[in-house]
Amino acid sequence: MRKLSIVKIGGNVLDNTKALDKFLTDFAALEGAKILVHGGGKLATELAKKIGIEQTMVEGRRITDAETLKITVMVYAGLLNKQVVAALQAKNTQAIGLSGADANMIRTTKRPSNPIDYGFVGDIDGESVHKNMLVKLIDLGLLPVFSAITHNGQGQLLNTNADTIASALALAMAESYEVQLIYCFEKNGVLRNIEDENSVIPIITNTIYTDLRREGVISTGMIPKIDNAFAAIENGVKAVRIIHADNLLSIDDDKKGTTLIA
Amino acid sequence: MRKLSIVKIGGNVLDNTKALDKFLTDFAALEGAKILVHGGGKLATELAKKIGIEQTMVEGRRITDAETLKITVMVYAGLLNKQVVAALQAKNTQAIGLSGADANMIRTTKRPSNPIDYGFVGDIDGESVHKNMLVKLIDLGLLPVFSAITHNGQGQLLNTNADTIASALALAMAESYEVQLIYCFEKNGVLRNIEDENSVIPIITNTIYTDLRREGVISTGMIPKIDNAFAAIENGVKAVRIIHADNLLSIDDDKKGTTLIA
Repeated sequence: MRKLSIVKIGGNVLDNTKALDKFLTDFAALEGAKILVHGGGKLATELAKKIGIEQTMVEGRRITDAETLKITVMVYAGLLNKQVVAALQAKNTQAIGLSGADANMIRTTKRPSNPIDYGFVGDIDGESVHKNMLVKLIDLGLLPVFSAITHNGQGQLLNTNADTIASALALAMAESYEVQLIYCFEKNGVLRNIEDENSVIPIITNTIYTDLRREGVISTGMIPKIDNAFAAIENGVKAVRIIHADNLLSIDDDKKGTTLIA
Repeated sequence: MRKLSIVKIGGNVLDNTKALDKFLTDFAALEGAKILVHGGGKLATELAKKIGIEQTMVEGRRITDAETLKITVMVYAGLLNKQVVAALQAKNTQAIGLSGADANMIRTTKRPSNPIDYGFVGDIDGESVHKNMLVKLIDLGLLPVFSAITHNGQGQLLNTNADTIASALALAMAESYEVQLIYCFEKNGVLRNIEDENSVIPIITNTIYTDLRREGVISTGMIPKIDNAFAAIENGVKAVRIIHADNLLSIDDDKKGTTLIA
């Protein structure tokens, strides 16, 4: 079976020009078929502030109202996506930027407004990814670069969690490829102590994960990432790694980052 | 030879929700392989104003400085492109949004800063279009939707004239398809009197064009469109039409709009 790496890059790396350039250089050098998924970063928040659009947060999560949606589409699917694609093209790859609307790549359902109305947020299900077309694009030698914008198939764009997109793509592609899913961010891995970059937890099994959550060791932001990762592993994805963006090319070094095992 | 329609839609239609929806419905119904190219509209200018980025105009043309480039990328390649793609997907087409950076579709050269520095503006040449890949995407049943953003191959995004992109695509595709190039806008065609929608000039030949320019009948904004159109016809494009966006489905009715003939 052919290998495919699906790499998610977090917002904090996107916000740092130098870190992003190093990451993209490494990503371009990564062997084999690959897909990049990128999040947002602080640019959308900054733009909203400049325009004077108030951001409403409920339980730590941003509400995507109509004006906020426009901003996320402009920043994620527009500026960030095209800057990343142009940079990857300059590094001799055939990058192609995609939102979920493009070629119907990821069709989602608007999240129910009950109990909390998150606004124009799309939820992924098992049928969301247009996998046949994605395989065809990869077969043409293209390198898909996904922003975290999807659509509902009826003309509505929707803001979607980038971690979830990465794991949904991994799940969908696991039928056709031996998939490794790699979450890259600005920390050395899943940390036992968030203040200590040397406290990386090298291996997390389902049992260890349950313990870590009970102990309150895993931070809130990390939980959806790990939940998605376990769902991926349990459904055919070969490997999930959570690593520092600087360490992409030493991905085979088990001493770096966190490896999730079913 | 297979037929391909390349349709350019102007900014004034993009700005009008109702006119745009009718146009996209008609475009989705247009038979055969097709490509859409869209311009900008007033959204970019509005956004620049909101953010407080001053727009510099020289001889009626906007200077694309670094901040203005970001805005055009956000609006053209982001918001407008994804809204159009999502709308076309809802009309049962396999639309895929592309900037020139995506799959290296259109590589341009930054316009020399002498005599006037237009900033981050890309000029197209005969080698700009990645035609083999574009043919492959069309062969997959995809419907490319181009925004007027290109790249220089070295990581720099560039703002590019949408009319020129349409004619460059037409030229490049003329080797593989029988191409008709259709410029859709908010007027009934090329008008003898810009105030009179009934003064459409039905046919323009090169000789007629020279006369019209000498008489000052052709307005400044129309000249690059027609220059590009003649370049296309002289290099293998089968037909060029300039029509009202409402008349796309009566494209074979010669009484509507302006037809350019070599």
